[in-house]
Amino acid sequence: MNVKKTYWNDVGKIRYVGHDHLRSELSFHYYNPDEVIHGKKMRDWLRFSVAYWHTFDQRLVDPFGTGTAQRPYDQYSDSMDLALAKVDAAFEFFTKLGVDYFCFHDRDLAPEGDTLRETNRNLDTIIDRIVAYQKTTGIKALWNTSNLFTNPRFVAGAATSPYADIYAYSAAQLKHSLEIGKRVGAENYVFWGGREGYESLWNTDLKKEQEHAAKFFHLAKDYAREIGFTAQMLLEPKPKEPTTHQYDFDAATTIAFMKEYDLENDFKLNLEGNHANLAGHTYQHEIRVAREAGLLGSLDANQGDKLIGWDIDEYPSNLYETTAAMYEVIENGSIGPRGGLNFDAKPRRSSYKPNDLFYGHIVGMDSFAAGLRVAAKMKEDGFLDDILSDRYRSYTSGIGAAIENGKADFKSLEDYIIDKPQSELIAATHSDHLEKIKDTINHYIIDTLSKS
Amino acid sequence: MNVKKTYWNDVGKIRYVGHDHLRSELSFHYYNPDEVIHGKKMRDWLRFSVAYWHTFDQRLVDPFGTGTAQRPYDQYSDSMDLALAKVDAAFEFFTKLGVDYFCFHDRDLAPEGDTLRETNRNLDTIIDRIVAYQKTTGIKALWNTSNLFTNPRFVAGAATSPYADIYAYSAAQLKHSLEIGKRVGAENYVFWGGREGYESLWNTDLKKEQEHAAKFFHLAKDYAREIGFTAQMLLEPKPKEPTTHQYDFDAATTIAFMKEYDLENDFKLNLEGNHANLAGHTYQHEIRVAREAGLLGSLDANQGDKLIGWDIDEYPSNLYETTAAMYEVIENGSIGPRGGLNFDAKPRRSSYKPNDLFYGHIVGMDSFAAGLRVAAKMKEDGFLDDILSDRYRSYTSGIGAAIENGKADFKSLEDYIIDKPQSELIAATHSDHLEKIKDTINHYIIDTLSKS
Amino acid sequence: MNVKKTYWNDVGKIRYVGHDHLRSELSFHYYNPDEVIHGKKMRDWLRFSVAYWHTFDQRLVDPFGTGTAQRPYDQYSDSMDLALAKVDAAFEFFTKLGVDYFCFHDRDLAPEGDTLRETNRNLDTIIDRIVAYQKTTGIKALWNTSNLFTNPRFVAGAATSPYADIYAYSAAQLKHSLEIGKRVGAENYVFWGGREGYESLWNTDLKKEQEHAAKFFHLAKDYAREIGFTAQMLLEPKPKEPTTHQYDFDAATTIAFMKEYDLENDFKLNLEGNHANLAGHTYQHEIRVAREAGLLGSLDANQGDKLIGWDIDEYPSNLYETTAAMYEVIENGSIGPRGGLNFDAKPRRSSYKPNDLFYGHIVGMDSFAAGLRVAAKMKEDGFLDDILSDRYRSYTSGIGAAIENGKADFKSLEDYIIDKPQSELIAATHSDHLEKIKDTINHYIIDTLSKS
Amino acid sequence: MNVKKTYWNDVGKIRYVGHDHLRSELSFHYYNPDEVIHGKKMRDWLRFSVAYWHTFDQRLVDPFGTGTAQRPYDQYSDSMDLALAKVDAAFEFFTKLGVDYFCFHDRDLAPEGDTLRETNRNLDTIIDRIVAYQKTTGIKALWNTSNLFTNPRFVAGAATSPYADIYAYSAAQLKHSLEIGKRVGAENYVFWGGREGYESLWNTDLKKEQEHAAKFFHLAKDYAREIGFTAQMLLEPKPKEPTTHQYDFDAATTIAFMKEYDLENDFKLNLEGNHANLAGHTYQHEIRVAREAGLLGSLDANQGDKLIGWDIDEYPSNLYETTAAMYEVIENGSIGPRGGLNFDAKPRRSSYKPNDLFYGHIVGMDSFAAGLRVAAKMKEDGFLDDILSDRYRSYTSGIGAAIENGKADFKSLEDYIIDKPQSELIAATHSDHLEKIKDTINHYIIDTLSKS
Ligand SMILES: [Co+2]
Ligand SMILES: [Co+2]
Ligand SMILES: [Co+2]
Ligand SMILES: [Co+2]
Ligand SMILES: [Co+2]
Ligand SMILES: [Co+2]
Ligand SMILES: [Co+2]
Ligand SMILES: [Co+2]
Repeated sequence: MNVKKTYWNDVGKIRYVGHDHLRSELSFHYYNPDEVIHGKKMRDWLRFSVAYWHTFDQRLVDPFGTGTAQRPYDQYSDSMDLALAKVDAAFEFFTKLGVDYFCFHDRDLAPEGDTLRETNRNLDTIIDRIVAYQKTTGIKALWNTSNLFTNPRFVAGAATSPYADIYAYSAAQLKHSLEIGKRVGAENYVFWGGREGYESLWNTDLKKEQEHAAKFFHLAKDYAREIGFTAQMLLEPKPKEPTTHQYDFDAATTIAFMKEYDLENDFKLNLEGNHANLAGHTYQHEIRVAREAGLLGSLDANQGDKLIGWDIDEYPSNLYETTAAMYEVIENGSIGPRGGLNFDAKPRRSSYKPNDLFYGHIVGMDSFAAGLRVAAKMKEDGFLDDILSDRYRSYTSGIGAAIENGKADFKSLEDYIIDKPQSELIAATHSDHLEKIKDTINHYIIDTLSKS
Repeated sequence: MNVKKTYWNDVGKIRYVGHDHLRSELSFHYYNPDEVIHGKKMRDWLRFSVAYWHTFDQRLVDPFGTGTAQRPYDQYSDSMDLALAKVDAAFEFFTKLGVDYFCFHDRDLAPEGDTLRETNRNLDTIIDRIVAYQKTTGIKALWNTSNLFTNPRFVAGAATSPYADIYAYSAAQLKHSLEIGKRVGAENYVFWGGREGYESLWNTDLKKEQEHAAKFFHLAKDYAREIGFTAQMLLEPKPKEPTTHQYDFDAATTIAFMKEYDLENDFKLNLEGNHANLAGHTYQHEIRVAREAGLLGSLDANQGDKLIGWDIDEYPSNLYETTAAMYEVIENGSIGPRGGLNFDAKPRRSSYKPNDLFYGHIVGMDSFAAGLRVAAKMKEDGFLDDILSDRYRSYTSGIGAAIENGKADFKSLEDYIIDKPQSELIAATHSDHLEKIKDTINHYIIDTLSKS
Repeated sequence: MNVKKTYWNDVGKIRYVGHDHLRSELSFHYYNPDEVIHGKKMRDWLRFSVAYWHTFDQRLVDPFGTGTAQRPYDQYSDSMDLALAKVDAAFEFFTKLGVDYFCFHDRDLAPEGDTLRETNRNLDTIIDRIVAYQKTTGIKALWNTSNLFTNPRFVAGAATSPYADIYAYSAAQLKHSLEIGKRVGAENYVFWGGREGYESLWNTDLKKEQEHAAKFFHLAKDYAREIGFTAQMLLEPKPKEPTTHQYDFDAATTIAFMKEYDLENDFKLNLEGNHANLAGHTYQHEIRVAREAGLLGSLDANQGDKLIGWDIDEYPSNLYETTAAMYEVIENGSIGPRGGLNFDAKPRRSSYKPNDLFYGHIVGMDSFAAGLRVAAKMKEDGFLDDILSDRYRSYTSGIGAAIENGKADFKSLEDYIIDKPQSELIAATHSDHLEKIKDTINHYIIDTLSKS
Repeated sequence: MNVKKTYWNDVGKIRYVGHDHLRSELSFHYYNPDEVIHGKKMRDWLRFSVAYWHTFDQRLVDPFGTGTAQRPYDQYSDSMDLALAKVDAAFEFFTKLGVDYFCFHDRDLAPEGDTLRETNRNLDTIIDRIVAYQKTTGIKALWNTSNLFTNPRFVAGAATSPYADIYAYSAAQLKHSLEIGKRVGAENYVFWGGREGYESLWNTDLKKEQEHAAKFFHLAKDYAREIGFTAQMLLEPKPKEPTTHQYDFDAATTIAFMKEYDLENDFKLNLEGNHANLAGHTYQHEIRVAREAGLLGSLDANQGDKLIGWDIDEYPSNLYETTAAMYEVIENGSIGPRGGLNFDAKPRRSSYKPNDLFYGHIVGMDSFAAGLRVAAKMKEDGFLDDILSDRYRSYTSGIGAAIENGKADFKSLEDYIIDKPQSELIAATHSDHLEKIKDTINHYIIDTLSKS
């Protein structure tokens, strides 16, 4: 392969420098990839991934404005030339940033033709170059996915479209997406159902649509198996936007769907911070729900603005949120069997220069690296484990143990409690001192990071 | 039984008068209980129920103000005298309003003593009087429930309390609640987990707490069976308030929980409009989700204000919402096997006179009666059925039928579609003309109700 | 002028038919333009206007999908040919729909050139044709405005841009927009500051930016006067989207700004329903605030979905909201000195056929016409006036009159009240029976409209 | 004065210890009252105040639960005995915590009697003891206020009540509140209009009510002057809760009101973080708006949860928010002429032990102290000043200076810009690199605090 051009010429390899300056530059303060934290290298805990769409395709449009992005490959006008140039730019970017993974939709890479056959041909050309780069760089695909939402044909859904031809098209598009997933060795395969929901309940057969979606997932899994594509399948919840309601509203809703349609053994969840907020949850909540269900698959790393009602996909910078997310990851042993942190994030529209893509990833990577450091320290000190074991202690003996062991029933519990006065009942509860916990978390953030 | 006193002396029996005046008075304009609509009497479709707590106990407090309510039994200072007076006032109220059902928490009825034994004794005295009234009036209990959230002992939960003694107390309290459910012949039994959630994830073992809750529900069901209490068990979702997060966030989340813990055969859902809104949903959405899952049990009839972030429990008056809810009910054949419409609603704090309780129920009952009339007319005309059958028609033959029948797979679908040009794909989709649908619903509301 | 083509060939003139069918067709059920309601023709109360951008330019894109719109002039590829064809299509549309007004941004009409001079030239060509149509049809411009938000040059604002060249450009663009406003005889001139706000407070000099905006408004007003363009100037509030925060957050905030910078004598407000909701308000609230301040200028007619956090610009269909809005208008005597109801609304993305533009306007016009009928009836019956005069009666005599007349001070009020017991104070308040009011409003909606 | 009892016997004086341990204890890590930061002692920048209501009266109730609080003076059953005991407990608390200020409502201190005369008498008794304590301890009143919202007589407002007797009562109650303000030497006087708003617009004369409120504020100011009470008057915005809409929605709305009714010279704003969030704003936004208007008076220090729709009044712990607030304060020179940071905050209901009141204040004080340190460091380094001066530089010369100096008009600006091509316009804008800014703020937080 001939790399004809480099694109990020004023940027070198981004390196860990610790705390040597306050104003952000092209370096990491907390992410030191080969440093071992809580038994694993940082790079192995975090498995950072760059999202192709937001990084290389995103023009920084919004509903009231056209794109502001300035990109080093803007000179290309032919869509295939541009697509090839972006591959070159992408691998140079991955390498300089120092990430080991990337993620992509099929349509991020190459333009559509008039038929799927033509579209697939365009895509295959680009995949050839990607595979070549993977060999020389060792950079892996954390996951790939299929864009079944942008084109007008998906106006009323893809797998849940009321129109059978669109269902057929979606299946065929996904078939090829699985094939290229196999070619790039994607470790996971993600489904985000941007159009799988409803605009109005009045004209929607919700059950039929969900059955169609479930069937679609089964067919996808079967075909992946058939071709020996062993990626972990993942569903990504989001409650709304673009549609009024999306079926995969949040982690719990998606789990209900997976259980109803016998998908929970083959699929797990890919969770995103901004999507959590749009559903009324914290990121930590969504990760916890998935983790406790054994269904945490991978993470989309970004943050929302809880005062804003749409998906802003901001690079994560809030250390409270990254600490909480990484605490859940440590409890889980890993992000997921093959999970990573994919930056489903983009610069603000006003932050439109090429290097802003580096600055955005730096704040994101450093914020998660910082979160890992803090969470690991809290874990190693037993700070939260102590709180939990203390709080639930009453279930380890006596009546609590009887409850745990299934030896209690309503009658035995009534016998035990019926004559206890209110004062004893109150004495059985304990203040949880939440203010102390929040204060201590501040201490952990400051003191751990100042020493790293 | 000696009824010593009447309380609502300036109110007679509320009757259906049709449209004879515009300003609301003590009469119904749309609710005509014995009129047959779509094959059933209105009273049998609607099965209206008065909520004891909001109607007889609620003092109209808010977080910044003490109670404003003026009630005809305010002269009683002894708590048991007051409790007995409220029973008298309640049955007079039910009779004058013309409802066939009521609902209550155990603690709505009688004051607590220092021990559960004393509390049960107080409660039993009141139940005696209720049972006597039921015999003479024929008024039934739609459901009863247990208040496991008000007392400080439930500060950190009841079935999910970290403190085993509180779990034991909750079980014992519920045991008695099931016993009185049997005595009053309650058709359903509701669990609302006001404290079953978390304030902070940092000190919460979410999985352990959910396992405890599931075990609790199983024990409850087992004990009900043991004593021959055959009520349909119902879980009532609410996303938050009082806690930061409640486990039964919405219908889908609760269904996931029921499936995980093998509860979906014995439990169904009791859904409330305001709770739907707090979870980011419409009431219709929640009812649809439950209906499609075969889990619609009963309905709490109220409305929220979507610009307000807490539970206002307003009497329903929005005809769009009642029409949508009743359309789902008609599709379901009934509200649920033994479901009804329970007014979990209260007057505004500024609407504090005794008769405001009648006005509130009138607007609520008339709004649901109106919704039933409109929904029935839309159903009988096939208005929405036509839209649905037209919209999903492509699945009845050809490739669509193959998809439905399981005869298609990714390869056959690819073969079918791979060479179709974009123009044919777009032609396979259809505009859904949502603006026409909304306009038509307005016509149905106006024209149906003007003729009723 | 030679009209070369017609575009809406399967649509005739939309006519008032009353209630002759339930399913929406190409006709009005409530809007009868020359019928006199409460002393004025419906067309004069309502002064409906079609928004050029959403009707003729909008492709029905969303952040995750390209346009689905099918429009009868889609065959034109040259941008000026297309622009001219749209003028033809627009005036045919206005005429068939039966509206007397339209509204437009400068950039809705014609494509930009590389310099403003070229852009102005394109625009003038289109304006020539519009002016010709106005002469033959009598259709007027309710207002025009300038698009200072779409182009990347406005990335950080227009009048509040940190970059002086962009301020200069904005002024020059607006200058020409005022000139064409004069040519088309626009009755109002609107400013919507889509980019006048901040993405982050950390890099924003809020005071300097607001001073710049105020100066810009003064310069605009001065130039309009200089050229004899007598339109009423209007500011349109919106709280956010596209920016994190927009300066004209809501009516009250914009009024504060107008007072601070001496703009309240020359500017009024243009208020939109969906924007009200995004700011946490009802449409009625925003109209009331403006009306009471004497600053109600004009209305953008649309509705939001209060469960959705972005601007959906849906055609209005909710009769509660249109009734409330029109009640405020009746109280105000008119929408504003030269105000109208401009449909800042678009079809759902799934409603993409040409005729959906008619259906959307029909539901919007009929819903506001219905609201007018209901509001007029409530006004004529004195329903709400009675409630108000009763509620505030205590200020018409005695101590209340003394308060009103400025004859009371803290000492005289203390003398008056200091020995009144709580029981008398409570007796001085009255229940407001809000449930009766809501029930009565339902009666007014049903009964008034069934008779119209 | 005889202090008969001490209440917080297991707590000593809370002292600054720096970073000597991670788990929160009864000590400060960042608040070192006499340390000079950016030219002033920390205590003088921060002027911390304890809120009497949340600290000594709050029982930790919520809408679904009775109080859980355990307080050291719970043994008192007589209401005046209890009130006196609370004064003792309060001054001991202030002293041990090391704050110089407290704030209170009139009704926090003493029980109401049947008439205002009786109520005043109770209150005066308590004020006697407070004044005595002030002499011995030197502890000052940051502000006092009047509770015109809890009692049912205020059901429809106080100064905006439709009932003149209630207006009179409110005036008389406030009169006495001003008198006791003078006795305790309160530096500010706050008005929070918890009931000054509406439940429904249908029965509300918004203009009349706002005129009444304005008159009330003028009378208050006049009376304060008359008696020589020189406190700075402050209005505290909140958008809703308890009412559907409160007139003082946010800073900008309140400023509009102040300007309309000629109050802006005598009144300033008291701003609260949680209230900002409920209005859709950040705390920093509200402080900025007030600061730029010259109307920043004082701050209520707490935080909300942006995913929760009601006022949780949590102790502040988020260092991003405290840093932003303190940056605004530094820019302002002080919190306000006599402003301070009053902890309008309470423990979570599950955090109910006496000492949780200390822990809550510690996390709050330390978080604001930390925010001050970080903000001061950012200011001293010129980090944000550099960004601003760079960003707005184009206004310092050339066409920008002409705009600033009022020498430009639409014609001269058109001349300047009309032939500039798009490329030059884009080149006139600059990326704002927001991701770098956020990353740098993280560095400032970690590195500044680790060194303090
Ligand atoms: Co994502
Ligand atoms: Co997202
Ligand atoms: Co309920
Ligand atoms: Co509720
Ligand atoms: Co608008
Ligand atoms: Co809008
Ligand atoms: Co406050
Ligand atoms: Co507050």
